[in-house]
Amino acid sequence: MTRLFNDPDDFAEEMIEGFVAASSRWVHRVSGGVVRSTRGPEPTVAVVIGGGSGHYPAFGGLVGPGLAHGAAMGNLFASPSAHQVHSVVAAAHEGRGVLLSFGNYAGDVLHFGQAQERLRGEGVDCRTVLVTDDVWSAPKDELDKRRGIAGDLVVFKVAGAAAEEGLDLDDVERVARLANARTRSFGVAFSGCTLPGSDEPLFEVPPGRMAVGLGIHGEPGIDEVDIPTAAGLAGMLVDKLLDELPDGVSVPGARVVPILNGLGSVKYEEMFVVYSGIHRLLGDAGAVVVSPEVGEFCTSFDMAGLSLTLLWLDDELERLWLAPCDTPAYRRGAVEGRREVSADEIADDDEAQEIGAAGDASRRAAGALARALEGVAVALDEAADELGRMDRIAGDGDHGIGMQRGSRAAAESARSAADAGAGARTALQRAGDAWADTGGGTSGAIWGEMLAALGAILGDEDEVTAAAVGDGVVAMKDAVMTFGKAQPGDKTMVDAMVPFADELTTRLGAGDPLRAAWASAAQAATAAAQATAEMTARVGRARAHGEKSVGTPDPGAVSFALVTRTVLENLKEED
Amino acid sequence: MTRLFNDPDDFAEEMIEGFVAASSRWVHRVSGGVVRSTRGPEPTVAVVIGGGSGHYPAFGGLVGPGLAHGAAMGNLFASPSAHQVHSVVAAAHEGRGVLLSFGNYAGDVLHFGQAQERLRGEGVDCRTVLVTDDVWSAPKDELDKRRGIAGDLVVFKVAGAAAEEGLDLDDVERVARLANARTRSFGVAFSGCTLPGSDEPLFEVPPGRMAVGLGIHGEPGIDEVDIPTAAGLAGMLVDKLLDELPDGVSVPGARVVPILNGLGSVKYEEMFVVYSGIHRLLGDAGAVVVSPEVGEFCTSFDMAGLSLTLLWLDDELERLWLAPCDTPAYRRGAVEGRREVSADEIADDDEAQEIGAAGDASRRAAGALARALEGVAVALDEAADELGRMDRIAGDGDHGIGMQRGSRAAAESARSAADAGAGARTALQRAGDAWADTGGGTSGAIWGEMLAALGAILGDEDEVTAAAVGDGVVAMKDAVMTFGKAQPGDKTMVDAMVPFADELTTRLGAGDPLRAAWASAAQAATAAAQATAEMTARVGRARAHGEKSVGTPDPGAVSFALVTRTVLENLKEED
Repeated sequence: MTRLFNDPDDFAEEMIEGFVAASSRWVHRVSGGVVRSTRGPEPTVAVVIGGGSGHYPAFGGLVGPGLAHGAAMGNLFASPSAHQVHSVVAAAHEGRGVLLSFGNYAGDVLHFGQAQERLRGEGVDCRTVLVTDDVWSAPKDELDKRRGIAGDLVVFKVAGAAAEEGLDLDDVERVARLANARTRSFGVAFSGCTLPGSDEPLFEVPPGRMAVGLGIHGEPGIDEVDIPTAAGLAGMLVDKLLDELPDGVSVPGARVVPILNGLGSVKYEEMFVVYSGIHRLLGDAGAVVVSPEVGEFCTSFDMAGLSLTLLWLDDELERLWLAPCDTPAYRRGAVEGRREVSADEIADDDEAQEIGAAGDASRRAAGALARALEGVAVALDEAADELGRMDRIAGDGDHGIGMQRGSRAAAESARSAADAGAGARTALQRAGDAWADTGGGTSGAIWGEMLAALGAILGDEDEVTAAAVGDGVVAMKDAVMTFGKAQPGDKTMVDAMVPFADELTTRLGAGDPLRAAWASAAQAATAAAQATAEMTARVGRARAHGEKSVGTPDPGAVSFALVTRTVLENLKEED
Repeated sequence: MTRLFNDPDDFAEEMIEGFVAASSRWVHRVSGGVVRSTRGPEPTVAVVIGGGSGHYPAFGGLVGPGLAHGAAMGNLFASPSAHQVHSVVAAAHEGRGVLLSFGNYAGDVLHFGQAQERLRGEGVDCRTVLVTDDVWSAPKDELDKRRGIAGDLVVFKVAGAAAEEGLDLDDVERVARLANARTRSFGVAFSGCTLPGSDEPLFEVPPGRMAVGLGIHGEPGIDEVDIPTAAGLAGMLVDKLLDELPDGVSVPGARVVPILNGLGSVKYEEMFVVYSGIHRLLGDAGAVVVSPEVGEFCTSFDMAGLSLTLLWLDDELERLWLAPCDTPAYRRGAVEGRREVSADEIADDDEAQEIGAAGDASRRAAGALARALEGVAVALDEAADELGRMDRIAGDGDHGIGMQRGSRAAAESARSAADAGAGARTALQRAGDAWADTGGGTSGAIWGEMLAALGAILGDEDEVTAAAVGDGVVAMKDAVMTFGKAQPGDKTMVDAMVPFADELTTRLGAGDPLRAAWASAAQAATAAAQATAEMTARVGRARAHGEKSVGTPDPGAVSFALVTRTVLENLKEED
């Protein structure tokens, strides 16, 4: 279990701080993660990786010459926000385009995808290669639905080496896809990790048993068997992966890199005993083993488990896999011609963002919006425990704490922007970034998008009219539906958002003043949220009686309705 | 716990096999351990390290250019035998002398010491530098009694870098001593490891508590406290080590390398959180942090614990610490000018040892001795459980299994030498090496010495007379007492050995035939052993009633007497 922390809320932040303090030979801290602290002689394509924290050396430990240029580092097992990814890319970009690469998880796909949109909007050539090596996470005919585990190292290393050689973005993307296509992994586990401050492990496997097909966050295995001997496990891993040969690979004769990866507390000696069996079996099958690795490359705190990854080489992949690299956690050969760069030389996205000019009316609106967000933060702080309880029925229970942290950060960010003279658009954009960075998860990202969408309508110049607010709310609704891909009836925030926006638009169209229209709309949102809350309670009772899933409402509608009512209280003073 | 193994008896052997299969870029297997698989342009002093297995990357993972030349790898938590150390040195030696370095543990001191004697006898200039970094294992005024933990890496690295620079043995030894003198470590633990095949961990710490001053094998801590916060632990570690400054170091201003070492299942993220506190505190104290390391450098399977090591630099140590190296588990910078060497190019001690010429009478004696050892192996196999039970009262319970394995290997080795035409000396020398290699521990080493001492008297030419046997037994007794440093009354094998040798000498002197004299001597040994066995039983009963230590007889006298009786049965046929 994880025993050493201060405030568990600060764990990821302090972990990154310690990592950077110990690793300044390789990395500098930037907003959202780390980038290299050295430069090569010529600019190259930038390879930016990332994901949640808790998988060291993935992801920060793989930044350095010959491997990644930067890593966006999220909270524990939580994707970095789009803003964090964007910020790391801004610091890592050398003008030749960016390859984003990360494991195929919904949160990461969402946030890196958003960041890619933003970067392309800014004229940066940006591509994405997902890592999908885990053979147990989806069938062979749905390769692109598979999740990424220790194959991360392979794809990142190959892409990083290609960038180092000076290849252009097309080629870096091509070899990264090729590396992913020729990489397969298979994991097993004996016990899950316990997150800092938590009393329970994420999952448990009975003593003497082994879960087959485990992921790296405590995703359930697809099977459970008695723990085999080391030789038996070697056979199980090799057989399955030989049965999963990528297109174009035929054994005997194929050249292969085996990577035996420990998840945390299955240790080197055990892994070497297992590896002795793997090495022999691959040889018996006629595969030619090249430069094997046995160690910890993608972990899950102290989870007891391991995975075998096979990279099936061609000449190009072999050259790139064997190329030198030098990072905090993975080094090979000699990297030449580096110079250190000071932290000052690195563009920091956030520091670079100055407050632009704004109209007086919009500045006043920014102040009012900051006050409204402060009210929202207070209300969500009070509601956090209840939202958490509801979310534990539907999901992982982090909705309350996510909304609490996100709204607090958003309020602080809006206040500091407003105090610095920002208009409504700028204040809302910054508040949205802060909410997404700090709140984490999908709800954080969605609130970030909503605030930014509202800001884009309100602008930095003009007075905020009732009509502008109406248009802004419609833009928020569109953002949620586009981004979250949910429809009314899916039991998400959209169930409250749509009646709210519809009622507001109707009332404003009918000539009601903003306050009255908002009150009516908030009532509609609250009614919808009430339905969600009752459904959640029913599901909770059914579960307590041992029934399986009866639909999984998420508390997003409840928190959304609360926000609309809180804003209404602020409108009393303002409008 | 350790879950993945085949036959637990084969664990260390299979672990080394897997390690070498995964690491052939750096190491070749030789009898007793591993040596480098690459050569530099010029011969250098050879740095040979080693110790028990279970501490990866210590010791095999630290072999490669810029670090160690070879590692003697013992069984789990058991010192390699002198013969194993000798064999690794023979393969690693480049003609410029040898530095042996290892942690200060009784078994390692004994076996590496024996090996050093042998090497010096062969004209090899050989020195030893013990690692003694653990501040909790002995007080400040007894620095040389302290045991070695993660400071191993520092001393090995500095010595390896000095050898790499071409320094002579005097200087390599000098800087290794200097590195040890300027290195201090402090460890804590939350739970012990479980050895392969064992049901119980080596020690347990109550939940929420932390043992202070733990070693790397499950040696008890000297104190137990509540688990502090990460910041609290950082403060505890730094305060103690700042209070333990080596001579000649004064803070502020001193330059220091902090090494935060995980013992197994305290993972990177937790260590980085702790390190962020350490880094700040060292800075606050005015120390200048140089090139820190956070990772796993000297482990204890999956033991939950960590240690902080501080290396206080001077210019020479800084140059050597920062020099390049390239090993399976620890790499820094670029090592140039290496060529691979094939396994055939490496001298293997054992393969090199051919059977020399022998007289016919001595060959017949070798056959008889092999038969006697085969009988001893059978008897010890049957007695193993009972000897184990007795040893669990006195010690760690491994005497039975050690004698069982050791005697079996000795019998096989004597038989194969006799079949190949060896004389008595050669057969006994090989049997002794096999017993020490396989039996492990002090008793294995002592039996190895005894057989070799007997062989030296019997020679490879002449008939084995009763007088020669008498002289041989006296030589065996002298070897035990010199080597094991025990006196009669110390409750060891010596308590039975001395009356045995005395009675044999007396009877032979009085003109008794060998068989009668041996029978009388075996009776004397058995009477002495009986006294030991009764004392052991008393201690066991007292312990069961909760009494603390009442003397700790070891079952060496009992197994020795059994051997003398078994040999007597064989003498019936022979003499």
